[in-house]
Amino acid sequence: MARVDDMSPTRTLTVSVPERWMQESIGDVPGADVVVWDVTGPAPQDLADRLEAVVLPYARGYDGEVVRALPHLATVLTTTTGYDGVAEKVGDGPAIVTAAGVHAAATAELAVALVLASLRGIDVAARDQAQERWRPQRRRSLADRRVLLVGVGGIGEQIARRLDPFEVTLTRVASHARTDERGPVHGTDELIDLAADHDVLIAITPLSEQTHHLVDARVLAALPDDALVVNVGRGAVVDTEALTAEVTAGRLHAALDVVDPEPLPAGHPLWSAPNALITPHVGGNASAFEPRIVEHLRRTFGELARGEEPATLVRRASH
Amino acid sequence: MARVDDMSPTRTLTVSVPERWMQESIGDVPGADVVVWDVTGPAPQDLADRLEAVVLPYARGYDGEVVRALPHLATVLTTTTGYDGVAEKVGDGPAIVTAAGVHAAATAELAVALVLASLRGIDVAARDQAQERWRPQRRRSLADRRVLLVGVGGIGEQIARRLDPFEVTLTRVASHARTDERGPVHGTDELIDLAADHDVLIAITPLSEQTHHLVDARVLAALPDDALVVNVGRGAVVDTEALTAEVTAGRLHAALDVVDPEPLPAGHPLWSAPNALITPHVGGNASAFEPRIVEHLRRTFGELARGEEPATLVRRASH
Repeated sequence: MARVDDMSPTRTLTVSVPERWMQESIGDVPGADVVVWDVTGPAPQDLADRLEAVVLPYARGYDGEVVRALPHLATVLTTTTGYDGVAEKVGDGPAIVTAAGVHAAATAELAVALVLASLRGIDVAARDQAQERWRPQRRRSLADRRVLLVGVGGIGEQIARRLDPFEVTLTRVASHARTDERGPVHGTDELIDLAADHDVLIAITPLSEQTHHLVDARVLAALPDDALVVNVGRGAVVDTEALTAEVTAGRLHAALDVVDPEPLPAGHPLWSAPNALITPHVGGNASAFEPRIVEHLRRTFGELARGEEPATLVRRASH
Repeated sequence: MARVDDMSPTRTLTVSVPERWMQESIGDVPGADVVVWDVTGPAPQDLADRLEAVVLPYARGYDGEVVRALPHLATVLTTTTGYDGVAEKVGDGPAIVTAAGVHAAATAELAVALVLASLRGIDVAARDQAQERWRPQRRRSLADRRVLLVGVGGIGEQIARRLDPFEVTLTRVASHARTDERGPVHGTDELIDLAADHDVLIAITPLSEQTHHLVDARVLAALPDDALVVNVGRGAVVDTEALTAEVTAGRLHAALDVVDPEPLPAGHPLWSAPNALITPHVGGNASAFEPRIVEHLRRTFGELARGEEPATLVRRASH
């Protein structure tokens, strides 16, 4: 007992989570006082005076100004894998820690779901069903397809694992060429050349200056007729205008969980293109999120309480 | 050279395939003369006089009477995995050889597609898209689901392999309990007890007296609320009336590639149930069929020409 007491933190860190169920599921974390704050308006004064870490809400907006107003804020934790736009909202001060890993299972399975649904015509069948239409048609199987996976981070790896048993040929692309446990990874400089030999392109990269419009008109033009473009990362990784031209011309298919802008404006041609399938950015928004964010936050709060650098830190605090 | 000649067949077997591309893709088979006949009307007399084996068409009807009329018919080859109804059409005489294995990849991937589409709301998104509606909702992921796979034949095994990386708990059921390379297989006598602890039931069994309405009202009632029933085998393996009651009551979800009767009659409640997804019996009807049926027929024609028993023989000839 004495030794356990010696190792316990000497002070308590106050950290907020955006929803009550998160607090309840996380339970006690030694050295951390976990409170509930939804980040939509100014924090109550007694909370504002002691908050050192804030968990941002998932799949809804939040007020960056009230985060910046916290006098002792040291760390902002996202509930997303990406953190594009977060620094702009919360300012230069606090460290940023992401929820990398939390959404991998749900997003990877949605990527496979979109590929399968588009190839096998599940979207067409769903619309036919509403009109009691039974129209069997021979379609392309995922089996025998050549898949180009653009992005080999945590979610990309989970997509690759899920594609393994589907009898596909998988080629992977990342920012620079390398070799990992799974084999060769090509660099984005080879993307246009590789596109010509693939039937399905899956984009799962963070959004950055380097990946903005990475899948541009030239990459799309290099894909063979009837190729399928899937995006489960960030909308602006694909040039929406160029993709729209290829899809509305009937040359390419698209299955998109993310678009640019999001949502698409009313009347946008992708809404009504028969060879486009759109889901409303729900890659990570599934039941898998709940146990995984709870485990992630419990682990991260422990790291913060012990003064350790969190495993998913992406930006250190500036002060 | 002499030895090769010694081993070559002494006579030539005439076998028909229902489509020209099959003949072209199969090419030369030693000892077999592969001709094209679509089985929709009487065979031309010169063909009828020498046909010994007939390949039935895939995904369309055929005339059993013109098959029975062939004087030298020894073998009927299906292009399907199941052969329910074939004996009734072609009579008691010829051997029956199925295309077991040919549809495993395409049907297994459709099973996974239906599970993912129903759980993640791809069908809802497809209908929303037609109205330019963007409605993100948190849904159940396949990750963490408890899946009950009813059927462990060739397609069942391919479904199991494809589910492996999806972070599910998989339980398998077959006609009788046993253990195989993958672990324990439960008998159908345990089906009701097992149903209570599973979120997704996938039926992929042949249709027989033993499997007719195997998934009946009691099995369905034992499934927990919001469970999903997927059928990619034969429609009558599930009691459609009982399933319809559970689905229209909003208690269960269904994703069905096969129904009973097929197609469902106009106005049937499953057509319009928001928690039902129906595809038009396209499990095996995908591009994967083509290279696999060609390889299968070339191998089987070789077996027949050499007088061997085909690997996928399910009924011997009666004479």
